[in-house]
Amino acid sequence: MLTMQDALARLTTYWTDQGCLVVQPMNTEVGAGTLNPATFLRVLGPEPWRVVYTEPSVRPDDSRYGENPNRLQTHTQLQVILKPDPGNPQELYLGSLAALGIDVTAHDVRFVEDNWASPALGAWGLGWEVWLDGLEITQFTYFQQAGGLNLDPVSVEITYGIERIIMALQDKTHFKEIEYSPGVSYGEVFGQSEYEMSRYYLDDADIEANRRLLEIYAGEAQRMIDAGLPVPAHSYVLKCSQAFNVLDARGAVSTAERAAEFGRMRRLAGEVAKLWVDRRTGLELPLGTVTPLAPARPAAAVQTGGTARTLVFEIGTEELPPAELRSAREQVRRLLTEGLAATRLGHGEVRVFGTPRRLIAVAAAVAAREEDHVRTVKGPKVQAAYAGDGTATKALEGFARGQGVTLSDVETEEVGGVPHVVVRKHEAGRAAPEVLADVLAQVVTGLRAAKNMRWNDPRLAFSRPVRWLTALWGDDVVPVAVSTLAAGRRTRLLRTAVPPETEIASAETFLETLGVNGIVADHEDRRELIVIGAQDLVYPDGRIDVQGEAALIDQITDLVEQPLPLLGTFDEGYLSLPDAVLTTVMRKHQRYLPVRDADGKLLPMFVTVANGPVDVELVRAGNEAVLRARYEDAAFFYRADQATPIAEMKSHLNRLTFTDKLGSMADRADRIAALALSVADRLEAGSPLLRRAAELVKFDLGSQLVTEMTSLAGVMARDYALHAGEDRAVAQAVYEAELPRNTGDDLPRTLPGALLSLADRLDLIAGLAATVGLPTGSSDPFAVRRAFLGLIAVHRATPRLAGFDLTEGLALAAAAQPVPVADTVLEACAEFLTRRLEQVFTEEGQPVDRVRAVLPHAARPAVAAALLGQLRDAVGDPGFRAVAEAVQRARRIVPAGTPAGYDAGLLKEPAEIALHEAVTAVAVPASPDVTAFVAATRPLVEPVGRFFDEVFVMADDPALRAARLGLLAVVRDLGEGLLDWSHLRF
Amino acid sequence: MLTMQDALARLTTYWTDQGCLVVQPMNTEVGAGTLNPATFLRVLGPEPWRVVYTEPSVRPDDSRYGENPNRLQTHTQLQVILKPDPGNPQELYLGSLAALGIDVTAHDVRFVEDNWASPALGAWGLGWEVWLDGLEITQFTYFQQAGGLNLDPVSVEITYGIERIIMALQDKTHFKEIEYSPGVSYGEVFGQSEYEMSRYYLDDADIEANRRLLEIYAGEAQRMIDAGLPVPAHSYVLKCSQAFNVLDARGAVSTAERAAEFGRMRRLAGEVAKLWVDRRTGLELPLGTVTPLAPARPAAAVQTGGTARTLVFEIGTEELPPAELRSAREQVRRLLTEGLAATRLGHGEVRVFGTPRRLIAVAAAVAAREEDHVRTVKGPKVQAAYAGDGTATKALEGFARGQGVTLSDVETEEVGGVPHVVVRKHEAGRAAPEVLADVLAQVVTGLRAAKNMRWNDPRLAFSRPVRWLTALWGDDVVPVAVSTLAAGRRTRLLRTAVPPETEIASAETFLETLGVNGIVADHEDRRELIVIGAQDLVYPDGRIDVQGEAALIDQITDLVEQPLPLLGTFDEGYLSLPDAVLTTVMRKHQRYLPVRDADGKLLPMFVTVANGPVDVELVRAGNEAVLRARYEDAAFFYRADQATPIAEMKSHLNRLTFTDKLGSMADRADRIAALALSVADRLEAGSPLLRRAAELVKFDLGSQLVTEMTSLAGVMARDYALHAGEDRAVAQAVYEAELPRNTGDDLPRTLPGALLSLADRLDLIAGLAATVGLPTGSSDPFAVRRAFLGLIAVHRATPRLAGFDLTEGLALAAAAQPVPVADTVLEACAEFLTRRLEQVFTEEGQPVDRVRAVLPHAARPAVAAALLGQLRDAVGDPGFRAVAEAVQRARRIVPAGTPAGYDAGLLKEPAEIALHEAVTAVAVPASPDVTAFVAATRPLVEPVGRFFDEVFVMADDPALRAARLGLLAVVRDLGEGLLDWSHLRF
Repeated sequence: MLTMQDALARLTTYWTDQGCLVVQPMNTEVGAGTLNPATFLRVLGPEPWRVVYTEPSVRPDDSRYGENPNRLQTHTQLQVILKPDPGNPQELYLGSLAALGIDVTAHDVRFVEDNWASPALGAWGLGWEVWLDGLEITQFTYFQQAGGLNLDPVSVEITYGIERIIMALQDKTHFKEIEYSPGVSYGEVFGQSEYEMSRYYLDDADIEANRRLLEIYAGEAQRMIDAGLPVPAHSYVLKCSQAFNVLDARGAVSTAERAAEFGRMRRLAGEVAKLWVDRRTGLELPLGTVTPLAPARPAAAVQTGGTARTLVFEIGTEELPPAELRSAREQVRRLLTEGLAATRLGHGEVRVFGTPRRLIAVAAAVAAREEDHVRTVKGPKVQAAYAGDGTATKALEGFARGQGVTLSDVETEEVGGVPHVVVRKHEAGRAAPEVLADVLAQVVTGLRAAKNMRWNDPRLAFSRPVRWLTALWGDDVVPVAVSTLAAGRRTRLLRTAVPPETEIASAETFLETLGVNGIVADHEDRRELIVIGAQDLVYPDGRIDVQGEAALIDQITDLVEQPLPLLGTFDEGYLSLPDAVLTTVMRKHQRYLPVRDADGKLLPMFVTVANGPVDVELVRAGNEAVLRARYEDAAFFYRADQATPIAEMKSHLNRLTFTDKLGSMADRADRIAALALSVADRLEAGSPLLRRAAELVKFDLGSQLVTEMTSLAGVMARDYALHAGEDRAVAQAVYEAELPRNTGDDLPRTLPGALLSLADRLDLIAGLAATVGLPTGSSDPFAVRRAFLGLIAVHRATPRLAGFDLTEGLALAAAAQPVPVADTVLEACAEFLTRRLEQVFTEEGQPVDRVRAVLPHAARPAVAAALLGQLRDAVGDPGFRAVAEAVQRARRIVPAGTPAGYDAGLLKEPAEIALHEAVTAVAVPASPDVTAFVAATRPLVEPVGRFFDEVFVMADDPALRAARLGLLAVVRDLGEGLLDWSHLRF
Repeated sequence: MLTMQDALARLTTYWTDQGCLVVQPMNTEVGAGTLNPATFLRVLGPEPWRVVYTEPSVRPDDSRYGENPNRLQTHTQLQVILKPDPGNPQELYLGSLAALGIDVTAHDVRFVEDNWASPALGAWGLGWEVWLDGLEITQFTYFQQAGGLNLDPVSVEITYGIERIIMALQDKTHFKEIEYSPGVSYGEVFGQSEYEMSRYYLDDADIEANRRLLEIYAGEAQRMIDAGLPVPAHSYVLKCSQAFNVLDARGAVSTAERAAEFGRMRRLAGEVAKLWVDRRTGLELPLGTVTPLAPARPAAAVQTGGTARTLVFEIGTEELPPAELRSAREQVRRLLTEGLAATRLGHGEVRVFGTPRRLIAVAAAVAAREEDHVRTVKGPKVQAAYAGDGTATKALEGFARGQGVTLSDVETEEVGGVPHVVVRKHEAGRAAPEVLADVLAQVVTGLRAAKNMRWNDPRLAFSRPVRWLTALWGDDVVPVAVSTLAAGRRTRLLRTAVPPETEIASAETFLETLGVNGIVADHEDRRELIVIGAQDLVYPDGRIDVQGEAALIDQITDLVEQPLPLLGTFDEGYLSLPDAVLTTVMRKHQRYLPVRDADGKLLPMFVTVANGPVDVELVRAGNEAVLRARYEDAAFFYRADQATPIAEMKSHLNRLTFTDKLGSMADRADRIAALALSVADRLEAGSPLLRRAAELVKFDLGSQLVTEMTSLAGVMARDYALHAGEDRAVAQAVYEAELPRNTGDDLPRTLPGALLSLADRLDLIAGLAATVGLPTGSSDPFAVRRAFLGLIAVHRATPRLAGFDLTEGLALAAAAQPVPVADTVLEACAEFLTRRLEQVFTEEGQPVDRVRAVLPHAARPAVAAALLGQLRDAVGDPGFRAVAEAVQRARRIVPAGTPAGYDAGLLKEPAEIALHEAVTAVAVPASPDVTAFVAATRPLVEPVGRFFDEVFVMADDPALRAARLGLLAVVRDLGEGLLDWSHLRF
C-alpha cells in the first residue's frame, strides 16, 4: 500500500525531476502553502522559479478535535510552483498523478472551475479544483496577482491535499486510519495533536493574549517594512494571519475587526511584495529573468482547391468554466460572422460548438477567393484638379503620381455632390486562406471573459489559457498565427486518448474525427446524452427532475467532452438527513443529479456524469466514497446539532457579528423579533406562536450544519425546532422567516412567517442603509437589493399585510438600530423601494404608464399590485377613461395650488351646473380601489364630457373663472391618493 | 554532483528504509531538530518511535549577514530518532554516510566524545560528534533525560549538519556556493533571507516587542499546561525559546534574565514532559511499548585443557572518551585482580589494555581449576551440643541434619575462644571457565564512569554502550553472560575491516590477532607510533613539542585504535593570525599537533592522526579544508575586530552581564581598574601605564574572536592593543591581567599586570562570595577556587606585592561591590584562602607541619612561602630547633593567658637569671624572617637549655612561680607572629 509518506516522497521526486527545487515548510504557522515565501515572494518579479514542498497547513477554524473523519486543523499540502507557466502544466500534473500510481485513464480526472482569491494577501488567480472521481484532490491556479502586484510572468500553483488523496487511494473513511508509514497510522502519529490543538483553537486559546500577539506582530511587520527587509516582514505578516485565525476560531472577531485586519494584512502584504521586488532588483535578480516566448510563425499559405470549402476553426483551451464557455460560443459566432462580413469572401451558415476544452466554429461553403473588386480612390475636386485651361494642376499630378497612374487613368465622379477626380482600381480578391488567417486571428484576440487571466503567452488574455489552434479551409491549413500560437491541422483529443493528438484531413471531416474519438462537440447533443442516459440509468425505479434540474444539467453538460452518466448509490441511512441537506451536497458540491421516486421522495442514489471512457466501477466507487464522506460530514454536524439545545445554538449568535456597527447576530435576531411583534400589534396579528417563533428566529445560524452550508439557514431551523419538540407552526414560521432566499424562491405561507420575514428585511435595510449606504451599481455585498425585493414579494403574497406601510416598518426598524438613522436615509429607502417595485412590475410585463400610476402606493406593494390588476380591467372601460381623461385635463388646466372649492352660486351654464351636481353626488371610496372608483365616478362621465364641450373655463369674469377652476379642481382631486394619474396613457 | 536537496532526499530514504517515519519540520522557529515534538515529546515514555526529518534550525546568535562562509542564522539539520536504541546505531549511521556516497573506508570517520545537555529543556545525553576527516558533520547522542525525566527506553538521536556535509562533499568554501539543486546555488535561494534575518536578529528586532512576546508565550504555555494540553504547551515553550534567542542576539539579556528564563523554560518543559507521559498513558500508549531485551544465555561451559592457560577478556564498547578509557583500564585491572583474589584460582600477571572501542584484560597462566578446599561450618557451642550425659542435644541433631552429615562427622573447634561443634567440608575446586565466568561478569557490572549512561541494555550502565564480550581461557570460551551480552570467541575489528569481525583461536593469540588486523591495543605502543610518526613526518623542517603537547598526545592516543599520523599544511597567510589563535584551533577544536621550526615559530603545517588504513590524500585534503574553514572563520573575526576601535569593543561590555547582582562586565572591569589603582597607591606603585592598562582591562571580551574562543581572552587584548598603537607595556599588562588562566599557566611578569590580575580575582571572589557563596565540593561554576589559586600564585610571583595583605585586598574589593559584603563573608574568604594555600604548599611536597606553621601568613602568600623556604634550612639548625623546642615547651608549661612579664628581682637560680639576661638581650626582627630570627635567638640556645635542665618552674612560692612563668611566657612569645609554632614537628 502506498503510505502517506511514500506519496509525499514520490510527488517530491516527480517534481524535482521536472526541475523543481525542494524547500522546507515555513517555520511559522501558515494556513496554506501559498503563504510560504517560496510561493508568496517568489511568484513576484521576473525571476524564474520552480519549487516543490510539503506544507502542513494550519486552519484553526477547521478544528474538530480529530473527531470529524475529513477535517483537520492541520492538513498536509504538497505545493508546487512553476514559474513561468511551462505551457503544459496540466499534462505535468497528470504525470504526477501517474507517479502516485493513479491510472488517469481509468479514473475520472476533471478540472472544475475554481477561482482563488485571498483578500488578505491582495492575491488572486484563476484555475480549477481537480476532481478525482468527484473528490477534490488539488487546487490548480494560475496566479495573476500577489500583494496587489500584477504577476509577470504568471506562475502556476499546484496544491495537493494529501490526506484526501491518500484516503481515496487507501480506501479509508477516517483520516486517522490513513497508513502514514508502514504499520503506523495517521491517528497514531497525529491524533493527539489534532485533539489538543483543536482544544487550543476552539476552547482554550487566550483571546486577550492573541490580540496582543496580533498587535505586536503587525508592529514588527511594519517596522521591518520600514527597515526595507521584506523577509522578516513577511514572516510577521504570516504570524499576524495565524493570530487572527486563532481569534477567529475562538469567535472573537467582529466584522469590523475582520475588515480592519484584512485591510491591514493586505496593506502589509502589499508593501512586503513591493519591497521584495525592489530588493531583488537591487540584488540584480540572482536567478535571472524569464525570457518571454517568441511569436509563432504561421504555417505556409497553401491553397490546393478552387471551389468553396468548409472552414473549421478550433480554439483549444484549458478547461473553461461553463458560464464562460456559453459566452465564448456567442463571441466566436459574432466575431467570426462580423469578421467574414468585413471581407468579400462568400460563405454559408456559421455554426459554433464548444466543449470545456475547445471552441469550434464551422462555416459552410467558404469561397476559394474573395470576389474581385473595384476600389475608387478619391482625388482633388475637379475644380482644383484642372486649371482654367483644362490642364492638370500640381494637385492632380501629385494625386496621379501618388496612385501610380497616368493622367489618362483619372476619372471624374461626384462625391457628396461635388465633382472630384478619382482613380478606380481593379483589385483581385485574395485567396481564402489568406483572408481567413486575419479574420480568425481577430476571433482569438477578440475573445474576452467576465474574468480574464494571463498565462505564458505574452499577449493573450482569456478565461483560461488558449493552448492550440486548428484551422482548416477544406484540405488546407489556414495560416493563422496569434502571438505564440500557429494553427495547424492537429487537434487534441481527450486527455486520456492514445495518442492524445490527431491530424485532421480536411475541414469537412473535423467534427466527424472528433466524434470518432468520443468528443461530442455540440452542447445540445451532450445534453441529450446526459438526460437520456441518466433517465435510462434510473429507470424504472426513479426519476430525474429534468425540468427542475435544468440549470444543473446545463452546467454538467459544459463540464464534459464525452458525457458518461453513471449511477451511484448511497447508504439508505443517510436518507434520514433532511432532503435539502442531501440535495445541496449533491447539486452544489458534487454536481450530481438527485433521483426521486414517483412521489418525489429522494432515493438513495445519484447520477454523476464522467468525462470519457473511464473504468465505470472504479469511478462509481470513487464518487460514492466522496458522497459518503460528505454525508458523513453532514451527518456528523447534524447529530451534533441535534444534541445541542436550541437555546445553546442560539447563544452562539453572540459570537457571530452582523456588522461592526450593527452588533452581533444575536442583537439582530432580537431586533427582528421585537419588530415582528410590534408590526403584529399594529395589525392585531399577535399570537403566542409568533412570540415563540420570534424568540427562536435565526437560531440555526449557531448550528454546525448551517455554519458549513449557509444556504440551509431556515431549513435547518425548522428541522431542529421540530426535533426539539417545538410546535409545528412555530418551526414553520422560523423557516419562513428566511424566505425568500432568492428571486423566485418560496414565500412565507403563514402570517407569523411573513411577519418575521418582513422584520428581518426591514432591520437589514434600515441598519445597512444608515451605515453602509444603499447599494449602487453592482456592488451589494450585503444583498440589500435582494432584501427590498423580498419585502415586496412578501407584502404582495400576504393579504393580511396589505394595510401595512413598509416605510412605516422601516421607520420602526430604524428606531431600533444601535445607530441613528436619519430621515434622509429613510426617504432614500422609500425611493429605493419605489424603484424596485417599478422594476418588479415592469419585469412582470406591466405597462410602464400603469406601473408608474400605482407607484404612490409603493410602500404597500400589495395595494399597488391590486390597483395594477384593477387598472388592467379599468383601462378597457370607457367610463374610466373618460374620468381619467377628465382628471388629467383638469390637472393640466387648473393652476397648481388652486384649492378644490368654489362658489356654486356663480355657476350659470347648464353644463357646469350639471357637473357641479354630479360631482357633489359622487362618494369616492375611502380605500384605494379602482373598481369602486370607476363605479362611483361613473355618473360623472357624461357631465364631464359636456362641461369640456360647452364651458369656456377661462371666463373674463375673474369670479366666474375662479368658480369654474374650483369646480375642475374638485374633479382633479377626485382620484387623489388613488393613482398618479399623470402617468396614465390611453 | 550530489546536490543538497539530493542529499536530504537520500538520507530520508535511507532512514525510511530503516523503518523511520518522516515528519515535517516544526512550524514554529526552533534552534534544533531536538526541539521538534517528534523528538522532544516522542523520546518520553515507553512507546517505540523511529523518525527522520529535516529541521531548518534558527540560531539568531549565529547571524552573520550571510558573510561568514561557515555560519548561518538558519542551518539545515537532518534529524533521526531511533527509539529504542537498535543496538547498532553507529553501524546504521555509517550506512547512511555510504548512502550519501561517502566511502567510509577511505575517509577518516571518527566518533569524538561530545556530551549534550540543554539546561533549558532539562535534557541531556552522552555521545559523540562525528568527524569526517576532522570535520564535525553529525551529533550522535544517547538521550538520557528530557524535561527532567529519565528516559526508558533510551533514544538514539542523530543530527546531521547538512550544509557542512555538503560543503565538504562539493568541495565548497562558502555556504553560498553550495549547489542546492541542479544549477541553483544555496546563495541564490537563501542568501537574501540570511542577510535579512541577520539584520532582524542582530540589529532591527524590537527588544520591547520581543520581551512582550516572551511573556505572552510563557503565559500561554502555562495556561495550556494547566489545561492539560502538552502539545500546544510545548509549541509555546518553543516560541519562548525563540523570543529569548532573539533578545539574546540583540544583546538584551542580562545574566539574571538568562538564569530566570532558563529556569522558567526548564520548569515549563518539565511540566510539558510530565503531562505528555500522562496523556500518552491515558491514551493507552497508541504506539505500544518497547519490549526490553531478554537476558543472554551464556555459552556452554567447555573445558578442553587441564594446564594453566592465558585468560583474555575483551569488553567491546562504543567509542569511549579518553579520560574514561584511562579510568576504565584502571577499574578493569582492580576488579579483575580483586575478583581473582577472591577465588582459589592460581594465575600470573594481569595486564590491561584499552582502545576507544575495547578494554582488554590479559591474565597469564590461569590455572585450570581452583585448588580444592576444606570449608569449616560452625555449629552450636559444645556446651549446647551435648547434654550432661554426652548425648547429642536437639540442637546438634538439627545442625547435623541441616549439613547433611551424621553425628560422627561432627568435630569440635574453638571459635572466638569458645568450643563449638563444626563440620569440615572438603570441596573440590571448580573449573577455571566456571570460576572466571563469575569474576568477569562482575568486572563488567562493576565498571563505572564519571558520567554514566544507559542504552538498550536493561541493566548495564557505563560511559558508553558495551556491545560485545570476548572471553577465552586458553582455547575455551569463558561462559560469561552479563545482562543481554554473552561472551564468545568473536571480536570486532576496525569498523572498516572486511569482514568487520573475526574469531579468536585462543587467548594466547588474541593480541596477535588484533595486531594482525591493525589494532594496537596498548596505549603506550600507540603513543609511540604517534610520536615517532609525527616526528618523522615533520623532519627535518619542523619539530613537534612532544613535552609541551604531552596531554594532547595522550588524548589523541586514546582516540584511535590504529594511529596513522598525517601531515597537513595550511596557507602561510594564516600565520599572520596570532600564534594562540592558530594553536587553540589546532589543539582544542581539531586535536592537531602544531609544528614549529627550530626557533619555536609555527610552521604552516600540522599533524593529525587518523584511525586505520584511510585514503591518505583524501583525509589530508579533508582535514586541510576543515582547518582552512576554521582559520577563515578566525581570520574573519580577527579582521573585523581589528577594524573595531578598542573603545567600541570595550563598550560592548555593557551588553555582557557578569552576574545579575554584580552588574555588567563593564561594571566589573571598572571595579577591577579602580581596585588595581587603589592597591597600587598603597604600594606606591601607581603609574600612567597602569592607569591606561586599567582603562582597557577586559576590553577584548567585546571582540568577536574572544566571543568565539573565550580561552583567548587576554591574548587578543594584547594583540588588539598593540594593533591599536597602545604602549607595548600597556598591552602586556592587559594581557597579564588575565593570568594565570589555569594551574601552571604563566604568571604576570610586570607589576601593572600583577596588580590587575590580583584586582580581577579579588573582585570576583568578593562579589561571588557575597552573592553565590564560596565553592563547595565539586560545584564551582564561576571558578572561584581557581581565582583563589591565582591570587596565591600572583602574590608569590610578584616581590613588590609581598607586603600586600590579600584580606585587605578582599575588604577593598568588597567595599566596591554593588551588594553589601558581610564581615562573616570576608572571614570565610580568609579561611578559604588559608586552606587553599595549605593545599598548594602540601601539593608542592612541603611537610604539613611546616606548612601549618606558616599559615598565619596566608594573607601574604609570598611571605608564607619565604618563611617556608627559610624553615627548610632552619629545621636543620640545632639552634633553631632548640629555640623552637623552647618556645613549644614554654607554650605547654605556661597557662594560657599568662602575660609575658615578670619581676626579675625574684629570680634567684643562676640558670633563670642567665635566661633572663639572654632574653632581655634578644632583639627579635620586626618582619617575619626565620633566618633573622634564628640569628637573633641563637644566644638563647644555651640559657634555655640550662633553664629547663636546672630550674623547677613550679616552685612552691607563688611569687617565684609567677616570675618563672612570666619569664617563660616571654620565651613563648619570642616567635609570636612569625610562625604557628605549635605545628612544628622535628
